[in-house]
Amino acid sequence: MAKRNLYLSNVPVEEALAKYIAALEGHLVPRYGTIPVTEALDRVTARAVYARCCSPLFNAAAMDGIAVIATATAGAAETTPITLERGKDFKVVDTGDPIYPPFDAVIMAEDTVEIDDTAVQIRAAAISWQHIRPIGEDVVAGEMILPGRHRVRPIDIGVLLSAGITEIEVYQKPQVAIFPTGNEIIEPGQMPKEGEIIESNTRMFEALVREGGGEAKRFAPIPDDPALLAKAIGTALVDYDMVLVNAGSSAGTEDFTAPVLRELGEVIVHGVAMKPGKPVILAVAGGKAVIGIPGYPVSAYLAYENFAAPILAILAGRRNAAPQVADAVVSRRLVSSLKHREYVRVKVGKVDGSLVASPLARGAGAAMSLVRADGFCVIGQNSEGIEAGETAPVELYRPLHEIERTLVSTGSHDLILDVIADIMAGSDYYMASAHVGSMAGLMALKRGECHIAPIHLLDEENGGYNISWLRRLFPGTPMSLIKGVGRIQGLIVKKGNPLGLCSVADLPSCRYINRQRGAGTRLFLDFKLKQAGTAPEQIPGYDREASTHMAVAAAVQNGGADAGMGIASAAAALDLGFIPLGAEEYDFVLLPRFLELPHLKLFLATLKSEGFHKQLAELGGYTWENCGEIEEVI
Amino acid sequence: MAKRNLYLSNVPVEEALAKYIAALEGHLVPRYGTIPVTEALDRVTARAVYARCCSPLFNAAAMDGIAVIATATAGAAETTPITLERGKDFKVVDTGDPIYPPFDAVIMAEDTVEIDDTAVQIRAAAISWQHIRPIGEDVVAGEMILPGRHRVRPIDIGVLLSAGITEIEVYQKPQVAIFPTGNEIIEPGQMPKEGEIIESNTRMFEALVREGGGEAKRFAPIPDDPALLAKAIGTALVDYDMVLVNAGSSAGTEDFTAPVLRELGEVIVHGVAMKPGKPVILAVAGGKAVIGIPGYPVSAYLAYENFAAPILAILAGRRNAAPQVADAVVSRRLVSSLKHREYVRVKVGKVDGSLVASPLARGAGAAMSLVRADGFCVIGQNSEGIEAGETAPVELYRPLHEIERTLVSTGSHDLILDVIADIMAGSDYYMASAHVGSMAGLMALKRGECHIAPIHLLDEENGGYNISWLRRLFPGTPMSLIKGVGRIQGLIVKKGNPLGLCSVADLPSCRYINRQRGAGTRLFLDFKLKQAGTAPEQIPGYDREASTHMAVAAAVQNGGADAGMGIASAAAALDLGFIPLGAEEYDFVLLPRFLELPHLKLFLATLKSEGFHKQLAELGGYTWENCGEIEEVI
Repeated sequence: MAKRNLYLSNVPVEEALAKYIAALEGHLVPRYGTIPVTEALDRVTARAVYARCCSPLFNAAAMDGIAVIATATAGAAETTPITLERGKDFKVVDTGDPIYPPFDAVIMAEDTVEIDDTAVQIRAAAISWQHIRPIGEDVVAGEMILPGRHRVRPIDIGVLLSAGITEIEVYQKPQVAIFPTGNEIIEPGQMPKEGEIIESNTRMFEALVREGGGEAKRFAPIPDDPALLAKAIGTALVDYDMVLVNAGSSAGTEDFTAPVLRELGEVIVHGVAMKPGKPVILAVAGGKAVIGIPGYPVSAYLAYENFAAPILAILAGRRNAAPQVADAVVSRRLVSSLKHREYVRVKVGKVDGSLVASPLARGAGAAMSLVRADGFCVIGQNSEGIEAGETAPVELYRPLHEIERTLVSTGSHDLILDVIADIMAGSDYYMASAHVGSMAGLMALKRGECHIAPIHLLDEENGGYNISWLRRLFPGTPMSLIKGVGRIQGLIVKKGNPLGLCSVADLPSCRYINRQRGAGTRLFLDFKLKQAGTAPEQIPGYDREASTHMAVAAAVQNGGADAGMGIASAAAALDLGFIPLGAEEYDFVLLPRFLELPHLKLFLATLKSEGFHKQLAELGGYTWENCGEIEEVI
Repeated sequence: MAKRNLYLSNVPVEEALAKYIAALEGHLVPRYGTIPVTEALDRVTARAVYARCCSPLFNAAAMDGIAVIATATAGAAETTPITLERGKDFKVVDTGDPIYPPFDAVIMAEDTVEIDDTAVQIRAAAISWQHIRPIGEDVVAGEMILPGRHRVRPIDIGVLLSAGITEIEVYQKPQVAIFPTGNEIIEPGQMPKEGEIIESNTRMFEALVREGGGEAKRFAPIPDDPALLAKAIGTALVDYDMVLVNAGSSAGTEDFTAPVLRELGEVIVHGVAMKPGKPVILAVAGGKAVIGIPGYPVSAYLAYENFAAPILAILAGRRNAAPQVADAVVSRRLVSSLKHREYVRVKVGKVDGSLVASPLARGAGAAMSLVRADGFCVIGQNSEGIEAGETAPVELYRPLHEIERTLVSTGSHDLILDVIADIMAGSDYYMASAHVGSMAGLMALKRGECHIAPIHLLDEENGGYNISWLRRLFPGTPMSLIKGVGRIQGLIVKKGNPLGLCSVADLPSCRYINRQRGAGTRLFLDFKLKQAGTAPEQIPGYDREASTHMAVAAAVQNGGADAGMGIASAAAALDLGFIPLGAEEYDFVLLPRFLELPHLKLFLATLKSEGFHKQLAELGGYTWENCGEIEEVI
């Protein structure tokens, strides 16, 4: 068998970065050059900038009116107006006009009475220097306008120019070479065959480098061949300030990055105590930083942010932008290991004045969790985790004021949640959904962690939906129920239903894929199984869980399962067969007082909108007669 | 006399914007087009984006190890290991490799014992689907990846590509034409003569438009000629989505913008109830938004942000980014009028856990106040102002976590404060200075509004500096004094001292410019005058106040004054004459517990640094033997 180097080191994150920066000492010196001020937006000053001339450059009228000699206006009053003669006693000035001696004050046009073309009357004396902007009032020549390491904003450009500065010294953009590697990767635009992966990490790095103030050059993918990789990196070390290699940074049979970097230079750290992202390689070759980044998208992102970003910031002369950190109540228990620091992606919402962080998928491959996330809950290496309901600091990467405008929905999954979020995106409000199943959604609502809980819970006794569950779970608490949609549940099967399945009674003969515990769809299956007299144990795959309708449909499409319970729209989306087994009511639960929230009003308006109903019709499998109606449940 | 149209309307800000948007109805439709995902950073999705393929696209190994058939591993345990045969019972897989039937589980490499090239031993049974990432675990084909109106981030690019999407529909960048106008303006790079102004506002607009997602085309300046202006705007209306005209938007003798726009289309609003920025013109011509923006830099900025920015956001398909708002204690009384909403620029600092907002210069021409500001304190039209010590909401335009890392200095002005801020810019901390004079600085410290107060207060009785004032003003409170610099005070005069001034006794014969009340430099003058037996009333200009050493020097350079008291470095900066009159001690006062703050430790290290002392030597007029030493004052 091919050799594996199973064990990486496990250096704590800060220690790894400090070691790396120390190893790069003398090499992380940002270069700088001179550019026109008009092109300096977002560039970083390499040194302090001082004004070349004053602003204003002369004593100037601060108002439209007349320039006068203050002493010549003494005694003017309502009862003793004074008449001034043009040329001798006054001069008409507009705002910004220079004021020359002997004039030393300005009287506003509103405070003058025109007598004829050559004379005006005033009814109040002027104080010397009134309504005059003295030279240098705003900026004095020689004054510091911007310190060094300042990121230039639009207003800075205006002030620099008006202070006589047309060029400034800024740090140059570091040049970053990015190498995708691997036999299994293909370029975007090609349709992947089984075993192939569309290479996307390095495109994300390109954008991250650009955001971080650098210039990125992504090279064509390099196959798993140490000689080719060594040659490519060796060449890049000549022209680039930093090199990123993705992936091959772990210790599998085809992970060549570390040996290649050992040949070209020195590997300072291989393996850091963080999750995801452990198999990172921090190396120095030819005096340049060369970083081997793992291949899983979340690992790739975290390895970049923790190691490549700070090195790039130093090279770009930027201050290291610390993320905004806010305390949030963590909605689910998070167990972590003392072996590493873990970065858990969370959705963050503000409910009743408190920030609530709901953990998303934790896998290193769950890139969508990064797309959906509002931040990271960082579980330190010295912590075994966080209990549900505990408050923990969250590194936000979405602005707090956006989070505060977000309607938080936690509960059952349906494709219509995405549709609603998309329609609401046309406004100043947002909607965020966590898919945890109906029952867990109601529990989250009870704990004050969401605004609404979408549910579809069958009452086995009366065949009704939702209301009896609310009475049971919120005894004595008045609740509101917003009617959502009726939807068809059934078995998602292969196109054409090749196994000829008819009902849940046929499931023991096929490979099933189930939904997670607490999901309304699972309760619906259990109810149907009970009616049919079929025991769950008889069904192969009853214990295999997927967390959304779409995940069930995907497993059926791929052949990993023959059937799964789900909604018609999910089957339609993947062009699969569908055996309808019943209609159910998918509604939204909330506390009555939340009805006053602006985002909730917008949500209600969306439910009632024609645009929404049109999209329901396109998705198929829905009814919406009472959609958006409110029922009080006591 | 030329006609003036003295009276503009006074429409409240929100009402003006709503009226304008209503008048533009049907014209503010963003256009969109298709671009490659790899170029989509920061662009805004024109519609929701759905996955084209699943990710992962196949059932894939989640670990390096061996793929096995779960049922064939049943019974394996520490005491009853099972030997598996290569090809038949297992296959070696790396992370990401596809898992084909009959294999349905992965055992990690660490949990296997290699027997020979064809066999391994395992000591635990595998559960079916363990360590396998099922197809669609991250993204299922057909799932929504991004909603519409979403600004594309690096992580989105990665996920879009891995979901098989290579192109997306995004909103096009609106094209904005920008016209500078006026006979008095000159282009940057030319040295202005008296009466001329360097045109800089439209360069600021260019940058603001770029930040706002548009493309800006700045045209060459147009002289004050209505025909030329009308022709230029008329042509631009064909090719551009929005037109900005700067300035001529007020009602002076040469303000042609409003009449020209009335000719080309319709003026919806001329004059809004805000300060600065009142004389804004909101017009519609040829179905396009044409905005006349006033010429004062702060007015220009506020008119742009309140009117041009929201229109651009609509055209760019962007959500309107509301600023972050935080409550802060306002350090000085702010009187405002019921006639308008006023935007007061403030520096914001966090002292002892509270945000404190210190108002900066309020004039419409004070562009540096925008450069220095961390946000706006907005005084509503229905308010007459804010009392000192009251809490008020502040619109921040600097991130809160930067503000929290800022050392707030309030007190006497010296050029070395800029030097210190510049040196500290090399770290993760910031320093912000408000120049209010020594006495006002101590009052701010007393009210908990700053970390340190730089002072130079002479004790007229014993000739000592600072310490006796602390005992008097903070009786019973232990204070810390950080020794700063010794500096030479004297008279700043024209180069070569043409009036032959020798001492303060000569001041009655010249035009003097004084410092504000409470400034240590003014106390120093008063002390010297008393010693010389000269009465302040004898000095022409004693009542004319400037608030910094540099402003005094500028007035002398310009000829607006013959002499002013100030420090040697200010005279040197503008190449003026200087008559030394005495040395004084410029120190920093703080509460002892602030010495523990990380930014304060950095401040102390800066005071003691060689780099700082080198710059003091270059500035001239300073001594620094005890610089950075701490004295306890009880």
